[in-house]
Amino acid sequence: MPHSRFYDRKGPFSARALADAVEAELYQPELGGRMFADVAPLGQATEEHISFLDNSRYTQQFSESQAGACVARARLIPMAPKGMVLLISENPYATYAKIARLFYPELQPEAKIHPTAVIHPTAQIGAGCAIEPYAVIEADVVVGDGSFIGSGAVLRHGVMIGKECKIGAHCHIAYTMMGDRVIIHPSASIGQDGFGFATERGHHIKVPQLGKVVIGNDVEIGAGTTIDRGAAPDTVISDGVKIDNLVQIGHNVRLGKGCIIVSQVGISGSTQLGDYVVVGGQVGIAGHINIAGGSRIAAKSGVMRSVEHPMDIGGSPAMPMREWHKQTLALKNLTKSEFTKRNEFSSDTDETS
Amino acid sequence: MPHSRFYDRKGPFSARALADAVEAELYQPELGGRMFADVAPLGQATEEHISFLDNSRYTQQFSESQAGACVARARLIPMAPKGMVLLISENPYATYAKIARLFYPELQPEAKIHPTAVIHPTAQIGAGCAIEPYAVIEADVVVGDGSFIGSGAVLRHGVMIGKECKIGAHCHIAYTMMGDRVIIHPSASIGQDGFGFATERGHHIKVPQLGKVVIGNDVEIGAGTTIDRGAAPDTVISDGVKIDNLVQIGHNVRLGKGCIIVSQVGISGSTQLGDYVVVGGQVGIAGHINIAGGSRIAAKSGVMRSVEHPMDIGGSPAMPMREWHKQTLALKNLTKSEFTKRNEFSSDTDETS
Amino acid sequence: MPHSRFYDRKGPFSARALADAVEAELYQPELGGRMFADVAPLGQATEEHISFLDNSRYTQQFSESQAGACVARARLIPMAPKGMVLLISENPYATYAKIARLFYPELQPEAKIHPTAVIHPTAQIGAGCAIEPYAVIEADVVVGDGSFIGSGAVLRHGVMIGKECKIGAHCHIAYTMMGDRVIIHPSASIGQDGFGFATERGHHIKVPQLGKVVIGNDVEIGAGTTIDRGAAPDTVISDGVKIDNLVQIGHNVRLGKGCIIVSQVGISGSTQLGDYVVVGGQVGIAGHINIAGGSRIAAKSGVMRSVEHPMDIGGSPAMPMREWHKQTLALKNLTKSEFTKRNEFSSDTDETS
Repeated sequence: MPHSRFYDRKGPFSARALADAVEAELYQPELGGRMFADVAPLGQATEEHISFLDNSRYTQQFSESQAGACVARARLIPMAPKGMVLLISENPYATYAKIARLFYPELQPEAKIHPTAVIHPTAQIGAGCAIEPYAVIEADVVVGDGSFIGSGAVLRHGVMIGKECKIGAHCHIAYTMMGDRVIIHPSASIGQDGFGFATERGHHIKVPQLGKVVIGNDVEIGAGTTIDRGAAPDTVISDGVKIDNLVQIGHNVRLGKGCIIVSQVGISGSTQLGDYVVVGGQVGIAGHINIAGGSRIAAKSGVMRSVEHPMDIGGSPAMPMREWHKQTLALKNLTKSEFTKRNEFSSDTDETS
Repeated sequence: MPHSRFYDRKGPFSARALADAVEAELYQPELGGRMFADVAPLGQATEEHISFLDNSRYTQQFSESQAGACVARARLIPMAPKGMVLLISENPYATYAKIARLFYPELQPEAKIHPTAVIHPTAQIGAGCAIEPYAVIEADVVVGDGSFIGSGAVLRHGVMIGKECKIGAHCHIAYTMMGDRVIIHPSASIGQDGFGFATERGHHIKVPQLGKVVIGNDVEIGAGTTIDRGAAPDTVISDGVKIDNLVQIGHNVRLGKGCIIVSQVGISGSTQLGDYVVVGGQVGIAGHINIAGGSRIAAKSGVMRSVEHPMDIGGSPAMPMREWHKQTLALKNLTKSEFTKRNEFSSDTDETS
Repeated sequence: MPHSRFYDRKGPFSARALADAVEAELYQPELGGRMFADVAPLGQATEEHISFLDNSRYTQQFSESQAGACVARARLIPMAPKGMVLLISENPYATYAKIARLFYPELQPEAKIHPTAVIHPTAQIGAGCAIEPYAVIEADVVVGDGSFIGSGAVLRHGVMIGKECKIGAHCHIAYTMMGDRVIIHPSASIGQDGFGFATERGHHIKVPQLGKVVIGNDVEIGAGTTIDRGAAPDTVISDGVKIDNLVQIGHNVRLGKGCIIVSQVGISGSTQLGDYVVVGGQVGIAGHINIAGGSRIAAKSGVMRSVEHPMDIGGSPAMPMREWHKQTLALKNLTKSEFTKRNEFSSDTDETS
């Protein structure tokens, strides 16, 4: 249950009101008047809470839950404990997200420019922006209406920020043009020089990095993530891309729409990902290759070649997922006669995340 | 030898005084009056220095050292050079740590609140705190006595910091409650949104992150490390945990007491580690699994399944250490008939760190 | 083509002037009067642009390019499209770097100390320095002539910065002495405590870290990178080393001259690299080992042993490159009879970067 120290809660809401607001089906319409005060995880929820079941790993917990209501798929109705109000959804996680937002609407920072912010007279700041202490906004920067610039953030000359963006504290943004509703978490560094050197007689000559970073709408970028600007072409992060913490994106990389890049991934220069590629944590992708849209790359893979058709890959060097699993098994069999301690590992999961 | 530009030295101290202060045994009591001016590594130490030997890799260096005194295990007495004063300890590294602290006591920052710090009137700042320039402390924050808040650090509304904590410059801390004597190095980001999205018709909907981060006593967190707050449960870092630089801890993760997490590790959401788990550098751990207390995970491993009993594991996917070594060997043998260049590698170490 | 929002262009320049300035050979001297207005990548260049061909992967693009001029190796003259002005160089990338610098000279920040910078009276600031808002410079710091200190950067007591250095915004630098022309990108943390603990009865005792960081001339350090100071010896980054973003360098590490360290590499404590070692992205190197100068380590390798003679290595645990490729192949063959989907991967590259 969210701590009142940090969160202000709305509600309570009736089951009917919640189901209507998020377009879920109320399985027991006669219980539509039951009131719920908060969201809570299955294991902690009580009668006044609404919870959700999305991962089949937690079905047992669902059956034993004390939650007053739960969002679940239709096929899990028979597993529900008696008396639980059910909101049926084929996408329980998305439905839960919307319900949680009803109880906890997004905080809107107060539209106020702190007097310590250093803002160049040529910068254009839109209506309703919140600019925190010690932010630095240089010449010719444009910040769209309703955007938030966190404490100490630095926007270098000419940077363009769209509407309703949130730039976290201590971010450093240079040579960048971004769309609307972009969220950047603290200490991200965007638009610095790419890592380009030409070596001549033992000296690494710095190659001028003359491109920019182009970021679409609805992008989210994690804390501490670094995105280098293009060397001559641009580095492009398309609409709806979500990037986790501590990711490195090299110069000239292009990420297609809706890609998901999990923490600590590194994508080398000039590589292109199609739309909706999912890249697991700590994956490394070599430079100058293409990954077909819709591909999924297992955590910790090392991708050294292009993937021309959408597929799931894993391993290092990465290969089709089924082949990787076979290799892992074949390797285990090589040493099997001597011992196989597979039982020392539980099998409660076979997923990376 | 620590540079006088950066360090103020106490002492000199007699061998007797040092041995008594750190509860080590003085092997030659008759040499208790010998005076030592400083600590130094074995290879650089001279007569006025005290050094230590902990790693058997350096035994030869010990035998040839010019150090006036050395902390070592009893069994290494015969290897000592003639005339060296020996302080006997079964934990030479810990004993050295205490001796070094005698020569170089921890610096106490001056208790002073810099006038440029922006502190909300409702924040409670304990006695004897040092708050550096450009720190930002929001409403309802509590900072315990004797704590240090570095330049530009941001403590978001409601954050609780215990006594004698050190929050590095440019840290960003939100939705967090921490105990006493916590050290956080510069540019760590704690308590931002976890990476949670529910995808619906091609849109990644942000799932509200409604938990917090709970940090125990005596925790240390490295530079640039990121710790996401819980989605609904909390992210928990228990007493005595030490986390290195550039580590990523996902939402809802629980680390038991005394865990050691080396640099660049990534721990995915909802995973739990028992007490005193040691995780080597660049390890990745999948989400929603449990690692038994006391387990040790070799550097660069990819852990995809729960570990139910304390054990050492390695590889990617990770397996029991002995099995991993056998696989590595079996794989080498596969190609052995053609060549084996094992001699191109020295064998001065078989450890990851 | 560099965006005028962010870049000011010099020129145009004649082919003759460009060739002379960078000491390239003008293949068609009779075309020396042709004027060029800008640089551009092969695929986007038109008649007024000069481009370059360095990577043979792009030879086809070269042959079809509309670029008015191109820097290329002599052996590629026959592949050039008709009418293209050729500047011949055996190191086209280095030659291009110099030409690009002619069109886009490095920006010199205005020599000015912002009134909000907090500078201790004992600090020595050289002539012509630019110090941005909210920088904090402590006692006894020395900053050489012509250096730039970015917004919010913190230089702790006694730090020495050479001439013409650029310290990015939000960097935190402590216990460090650096040479001239060092570039440090935003949010790097240099000189904090190494990760040193001695465990005694379940307590991890902090081992005092008493060394410093010594950085040579012409070093570049990426955004978010962390370099711990020495425990007793120093951490040493020699002249000409280039370190990418999000790299972790442990205490006591020594990097020889001209090393290239790609993004997200981790180098554990007390390890030494000789001169001109190239370390690919996401590599991990164990502690207390030595890597011979001139060695190259493939991306994502895990290096557990010393490398005594210069060689190329790869894999985890790392081995000679040729052996690694054989192992990869042998492993593939283990499962080959069942299926081999090598054709699902294109072969447009076999390089990591």
